[in-house]
Amino acid sequence: MDVLDWLRAALGDEAVASGVLSTDDAELEAARTDRSGWIADGRPLAVVHATTVEHVQATLRAASEFRVPVVPRGAGTGLAGGANGTDGSIVLSVTGMNRIVEISADDELAVVEPGVINADLNAALEPFGLWFAPDPASKAISTVGGNIATNAGGLLCAKYGVTREAVLALDIVLPDGRLISTGHRTVKGVTGFDITALFVGSEGTLGVIVGATVRVLPIPPGVPTTIGALFPDVRTAAGAAARVTASRLRPAVMEILDGPSLERISAYLGEQVIAEAFGVTHGGSYLLTQFDGLSAADDAEAAAQVIREAGGTVEVSVDAEAGERLLAIRRAFHPALAATGEVLIEDVSVPRSRMAEMFAAIESISARHGIAIPTVAHAGDGNLHPNFVYSGDVVPEAVWDAANDLFRTAIELGGTLTGEHGVGVLKRRWLADELGPDSYDLQVKLKSVFDPLGILNPGKVFG
Amino acid sequence: MDVLDWLRAALGDEAVASGVLSTDDAELEAARTDRSGWIADGRPLAVVHATTVEHVQATLRAASEFRVPVVPRGAGTGLAGGANGTDGSIVLSVTGMNRIVEISADDELAVVEPGVINADLNAALEPFGLWFAPDPASKAISTVGGNIATNAGGLLCAKYGVTREAVLALDIVLPDGRLISTGHRTVKGVTGFDITALFVGSEGTLGVIVGATVRVLPIPPGVPTTIGALFPDVRTAAGAAARVTASRLRPAVMEILDGPSLERISAYLGEQVIAEAFGVTHGGSYLLTQFDGLSAADDAEAAAQVIREAGGTVEVSVDAEAGERLLAIRRAFHPALAATGEVLIEDVSVPRSRMAEMFAAIESISARHGIAIPTVAHAGDGNLHPNFVYSGDVVPEAVWDAANDLFRTAIELGGTLTGEHGVGVLKRRWLADELGPDSYDLQVKLKSVFDPLGILNPGKVFG
Repeated sequence: MDVLDWLRAALGDEAVASGVLSTDDAELEAARTDRSGWIADGRPLAVVHATTVEHVQATLRAASEFRVPVVPRGAGTGLAGGANGTDGSIVLSVTGMNRIVEISADDELAVVEPGVINADLNAALEPFGLWFAPDPASKAISTVGGNIATNAGGLLCAKYGVTREAVLALDIVLPDGRLISTGHRTVKGVTGFDITALFVGSEGTLGVIVGATVRVLPIPPGVPTTIGALFPDVRTAAGAAARVTASRLRPAVMEILDGPSLERISAYLGEQVIAEAFGVTHGGSYLLTQFDGLSAADDAEAAAQVIREAGGTVEVSVDAEAGERLLAIRRAFHPALAATGEVLIEDVSVPRSRMAEMFAAIESISARHGIAIPTVAHAGDGNLHPNFVYSGDVVPEAVWDAANDLFRTAIELGGTLTGEHGVGVLKRRWLADELGPDSYDLQVKLKSVFDPLGILNPGKVFG
Repeated sequence: MDVLDWLRAALGDEAVASGVLSTDDAELEAARTDRSGWIADGRPLAVVHATTVEHVQATLRAASEFRVPVVPRGAGTGLAGGANGTDGSIVLSVTGMNRIVEISADDELAVVEPGVINADLNAALEPFGLWFAPDPASKAISTVGGNIATNAGGLLCAKYGVTREAVLALDIVLPDGRLISTGHRTVKGVTGFDITALFVGSEGTLGVIVGATVRVLPIPPGVPTTIGALFPDVRTAAGAAARVTASRLRPAVMEILDGPSLERISAYLGEQVIAEAFGVTHGGSYLLTQFDGLSAADDAEAAAQVIREAGGTVEVSVDAEAGERLLAIRRAFHPALAATGEVLIEDVSVPRSRMAEMFAAIESISARHGIAIPTVAHAGDGNLHPNFVYSGDVVPEAVWDAANDLFRTAIELGGTLTGEHGVGVLKRRWLADELGPDSYDLQVKLKSVFDPLGILNPGKVFG
């Protein structure tokens, strides 16, 4: 009896008949990759499409019995290779566990299965006047479980926090198949160690999240006000963003597009789009700022003044349509790049005060390596996404050389090699550099408390 | 050579001469207790007054060498017996490590040593227009390190979060004396497991926090508006609080005082204080609500309407002085109780929607045990502080019997036996009930990753 025989017996005939266990070629192939484009060597044994906690437990028990690796997977929208099905593994997909179990408006929380799509949760919350703040660019297609596993961020984190701040409690299946519950349904609670927080950003290496109680927030009242501003270069745009922060205003969104980005966006959208909004063809950098809440218009007026003084050519939205025009420039970033080739989206974070230095370093790394690196930054929180456009199936080693310089610079500036995408496979070779040997060693030991057999997502994060 | 000889040698003559190592009787005695009133049996060996990281490292190395327990301690303001010096231990006080190392207005963070008093940090931040949101009642006397060790809460958590949300990075000395750094100076970061969060609320059982990088926030602009409301009973007050939450308004403060509390406060302040504010002598419950930010007055007006409709006799502050009068009633809670005897401050938390049930359970537990339990609740987040007034040096077993009923009820209602004070010694006998055996076992194993010799604060949290 091999692991799949054992697993079939554990899942039961009914589950197997309904397709919970798949060894279909196309599915096995698809499970080898994610949105990073990285493709795992070899091939997984099977994909389990779990629809119940029991399916997850059966899979982990089978894997423990036969020492077979398990790769937990949501929608596969990750950008670091964290959910890619490796050779000989069982890919454990939880996208079929997609029920919204409860929305409690009184307690401002939702209880969900891990496969619920972020945007679907928000659609369900909207009638209650509530929303789920984690806002990754993938929110239309990524799962809440995946958001938790990578501690996903997005555009709104300076004001509304990262995913960690939104997770109250988890149901987790441990590698040996036991189900535990962590955390609290309450806002406060300090009974023992915060295992919930330990799982946020753990990239499927400690256990499988089968349920989450997440905090939800009242939808900010009023209409957001949006400011678009063109600058001669990214340095002055970053300076303006710093001055907005220093003014103690609190934008919901503050995004910088650098010169190489804006150039590609202009080409993609057509130059008239920017010309119509600003009366000039294009600038050397774009700063997008948005305020929400009842004081949005007043805050935006004050911020617009700050941005003008910092050298920006400013447009403030007068209505939702005008706001959309200003947002559209930012939204065109990814499509504009994708139109020109394959894209590796990088994800460094630095203290806000070092952002201009990081932009300067990106320029010089770009020049040194002869590779264009169009970059967008969440300027409110110092998270930059330098993007590499390349051709072919595999990221060229020359790109990784340039990325290596990026990561080391971010760490030198007091930052981190991943703000919101995670380590996965693609950044594991730099993890020890950032953590240092003692912390790295502690992390490996922590993993072994949860996963003594090392069956859960081996080769991810820790290499 | 015993542990103290070894430690003297490791600390060095200069440190010893300047009083870093104390075996003074009065100090040893004082270190046996905290603000809970619980006194540890026996007596510690010594108190180390660390002023540098090296002192902390020397202490932990000595303790590891001789397998002597170390009890990390801040200002000793804890309410669960977590920092009490146990028999034969070395108490490691970090109150002398009280430098504010850096305030970065640009990055909205502060770097502090663990012994910095919460209020001192806020005083230093104020000129920058910034503040540190964790707001325990002890903030004038408690340390930031202690706030982190207990994941301290306070009145403002529904809007501004608990301490966990305010901690970005930590410097930690492990039990074997190694210094590690965890976390990020950035808002975002997902490199490995969140060891920083694991330390928040760990009550000195994993390592000694010797430095913290904390997030600070812009001081909300404008003048807060305060609403005081009297209700016939606590049930209607809790209903009004729930309706404020349901209205999706977001008060900074929302506090409920029950009947037994209000009675004692009236006696303490004099009945005319409440009569002057409300035109009636006293009610059966008091709801205090405060809004901050630019929309404070508008929000308060909307909330006042909701509270009136829910049966409250409402006063809205027209100026700071009027606001103070309304706040003074809440502030008198602890002094009013302390004026009548020794007080055990309990600390359960329930989902907001179950708060009225918890109040009802407190009334019935009070009646069943024949013990008055005046209770104040942070109604925005469901954290209740039932208080027991007793006489004598030791909490009577009858009080613990009633507290036992409280804890079990809170857990049954989906809550927790400690919202913000921690487990310490006083709640360890209930911890496994809340966590369940599998989670409890995992927590014990996690501790042993950091503290394999079990020298750090043994007997705390895990009994």
